[in-house]
Amino acid sequence: MTETQGSTPSRRALIGWGGAGLALGAAAAGGAVAMARTGNDVDPVAAETGGAVEFHGAHQAGIATPVQDRLHFAAFDVKTEDRAEFVQMLKDWTEAARRMTQGKAVGEGAYGGLAEAPPDDTGEALGLKPSRLTLTIGFGPSLFDKFGLRDKRPEALVDLPKFPGDNLDRTRTGGDLCVQACADDPQVAVHAIRNLARIGFGKVAIRWSQLGFGKTSSTTPDAQTPRNLMGFKDGTRNIAGTETDRLKKFVWVGDGDGQDWMTGGSYLVARRIRMNIETWDRTSLQEQEDVFGRDKREGAPVGKAKEHDAPFLKAMKPDAHVRLAHPDSNDGATILRRGYSFTDGTDGLGRLDAGLFFLAYQRDVRKGFIPVQRRLSAQDALNEYIQHVGSAVFAVPPGVRDSGDWWGRTLFSKEA
Amino acid sequence: MTETQGSTPSRRALIGWGGAGLALGAAAAGGAVAMARTGNDVDPVAAETGGAVEFHGAHQAGIATPVQDRLHFAAFDVKTEDRAEFVQMLKDWTEAARRMTQGKAVGEGAYGGLAEAPPDDTGEALGLKPSRLTLTIGFGPSLFDKFGLRDKRPEALVDLPKFPGDNLDRTRTGGDLCVQACADDPQVAVHAIRNLARIGFGKVAIRWSQLGFGKTSSTTPDAQTPRNLMGFKDGTRNIAGTETDRLKKFVWVGDGDGQDWMTGGSYLVARRIRMNIETWDRTSLQEQEDVFGRDKREGAPVGKAKEHDAPFLKAMKPDAHVRLAHPDSNDGATILRRGYSFTDGTDGLGRLDAGLFFLAYQRDVRKGFIPVQRRLSAQDALNEYIQHVGSAVFAVPPGVRDSGDWWGRTLFSKEA
Ligand code: HEM
Ligand code: HEM
Repeated sequence: MTETQGSTPSRRALIGWGGAGLALGAAAAGGAVAMARTGNDVDPVAAETGGAVEFHGAHQAGIATPVQDRLHFAAFDVKTEDRAEFVQMLKDWTEAARRMTQGKAVGEGAYGGLAEAPPDDTGEALGLKPSRLTLTIGFGPSLFDKFGLRDKRPEALVDLPKFPGDNLDRTRTGGDLCVQACADDPQVAVHAIRNLARIGFGKVAIRWSQLGFGKTSSTTPDAQTPRNLMGFKDGTRNIAGTETDRLKKFVWVGDGDGQDWMTGGSYLVARRIRMNIETWDRTSLQEQEDVFGRDKREGAPVGKAKEHDAPFLKAMKPDAHVRLAHPDSNDGATILRRGYSFTDGTDGLGRLDAGLFFLAYQRDVRKGFIPVQRRLSAQDALNEYIQHVGSAVFAVPPGVRDSGDWWGRTLFSKEA
Repeated sequence: MTETQGSTPSRRALIGWGGAGLALGAAAAGGAVAMARTGNDVDPVAAETGGAVEFHGAHQAGIATPVQDRLHFAAFDVKTEDRAEFVQMLKDWTEAARRMTQGKAVGEGAYGGLAEAPPDDTGEALGLKPSRLTLTIGFGPSLFDKFGLRDKRPEALVDLPKFPGDNLDRTRTGGDLCVQACADDPQVAVHAIRNLARIGFGKVAIRWSQLGFGKTSSTTPDAQTPRNLMGFKDGTRNIAGTETDRLKKFVWVGDGDGQDWMTGGSYLVARRIRMNIETWDRTSLQEQEDVFGRDKREGAPVGKAKEHDAPFLKAMKPDAHVRLAHPDSNDGATILRRGYSFTDGTDGLGRLDAGLFFLAYQRDVRKGFIPVQRRLSAQDALNEYIQHVGSAVFAVPPGVRDSGDWWGRTLFSKEA
């Protein structure tokens, strides 16, 4: 069971200079994903922005759990050839993730320990709240060329084809591993990635990383829909974290989907999509609304009044983004979007290097992202204003069941 | 008078699809900086994170006003040679800044207007709160080579010398103009810079920009001191926005300081300081604490118990950062720090491109940043772990007095 805790202890309180820490009960494995929030007596603002998200469960947190405000995403390459060393790192990472998501520093001693040793934790999140931190791990196709894993590579983990218009930067593409860190406080997300990189030193190295300053999707049906950098509400028609049936159908890998070790997991596609915002900003409102097939102010589909009215696709221009991306245009293909806006300085030509860091989860990439993106890359009116400049795909294993479990056990452990 | 408004109208409410907008009274010019917060009946959380900061005043907001959580900073180069066109842009910017800081969209019509015209506002901040947005403009040395301004260049606006260890990237250095956008919501800060760039299109172009994901200093005496990416509390000994005397002595340009048009203004030094966090993270706690001359957990100076105890410099190692940076080591030189942490992906060598975007305000750069940095660059133990990779200096003009005033009037207007 994945749930958002209502309590908001500070990292300082939890750091355990000697204290017992929070005893978090192991979550029931295999249960339905419930988004229930505990603690009705808790200040809702604090629960929204400060609370801890349960780390254990049938699925990893950070997919169907409510979308946090900020992202730090890192892709890693493996440097070690020693399988046992790599597995030990995954166990160490799991323990660190378990602590950090609950607002605790990495390592028991932290700053009570030996002054002559490097601290177990880098310290910049001391005193900060858990901030709904989630850490979600994924394994890239190239990992399966290593450690004798070739037979374990899921068929659904295909290498993405080259789509028309792709202009991929090798230094922002691929990766043996990824960790998605989402939190309401960016310092908490950055701290988490940095400490995992530190623990992984010598065994893995960061290949690329991406900061997302603001969410562009939501998995909470009643939340205000965030706007992307084109000024449009984004994520209106998404799979909500409470829709157990749709999650099961479109997001979670089921029994018999192929590799057993992936049951309860998902597949993640990451695309760094640059927006040509200077050109967009000089485009008329009519053209902007035609491009999406929705109005800008309210976010309603063409001909409808309200954001959440069902889109009538035929009323939209044939090349409208929403029309082309809609499941009805793609044999039902449906993805869970969890993207973030980015702004990474300038591009050397006086333009902001800004856009959408698109993240989508699905049960099978061949029935999710690929068919939708084939259609979009060929026909979408939006293509005049965007360019895909980075790309990666990952197999996201199932959740860590309890305090004895670890990230990747079902893949690496003989007994699995 | 600069003050934080307690009210938190949403941008949606204020957008004025036809409404009259907020009538904000002109602020008294020349008055002391008061940080008083109005509206005791307002939810303090909302006021902290959502409210509007008064745009008008003797000084620009964004210097002594309480430090917000996020930053988007942009340096611009001038493209036009037409002085009248440039002045008109400054007026248009001022009007846009006046609206945006109060949570309103740029332009009255916004989305009620003609669908066939580009919208006046890019729209991604629709529905968001003012988020304490401040916009602060500065003029770089190179601006004074243009528009016949040579005689107006203040003596205090010196070109910074090259300091030992500087490794400046030309593409992150200099600029004719800058705008510092600070807000509690990064989308609001990014939106503001992007709309100013849009308004300036053809007249100015962005030279470089920097996103700061978390503040590292505070100008509010009772706020929790934020930690920088080295894990230490940063900004403990800063000038608080309430210390009118110290602000007058060290931050605001006074009558008779040189160029009259700068009276009530300040000078800003921006330095992009990369941290070698991977090396830092493998350094012992003792060494880390020796480097700063403060302990990591509490932030207390060597030999003292509490963060806010006065430092006893002689107890620190001779090359400790705090010892060398302290006014007592620099003939009293004192600056107001307002920096932010950054993480801009990776450097191509598997390391995070992360560090401190250092911002310091002072009455005279020759008596503020330069002497302190001369000492630090020559002796600071911290130099082993950092590198200055970007640099800029700006003359920050006085505040916009009222609704008829505009950014730079005292510099450009004949009557000034
Ligand atoms: C910068 C690039 C993109 C932008 C700005 C963008 C923006 C939007 C917006 C504003 C909507 C309408 C609101 C909503 O239902 O969320 C939307 C819908 C959607 N987009 Fe995108 N999108 C982008 C790229 C993509 C990509 C690469 C894909 C997948 C390959 C995608 C798939 C979808 C889907 C499935 C929908 C929902 C369609 C429906 O069911 O009505 N989008 N997008
Ligand atoms: C990455 C670079 C830097 C880091 C990590 C850093 C960090 C710190 C820390 C942790 C403190 C102690 C707490 C406090 O009083 O704020 C401090 C103090 C200070 N730093 Fe820095 N600093 C950096 C660069 C600079 C630079 C470039 C300057 C100016 C040239 C500077 C000037 C000061 C001053 C004036 C103090 C207060 C000293 C006192 O009055 O006790 N720092 N810094």
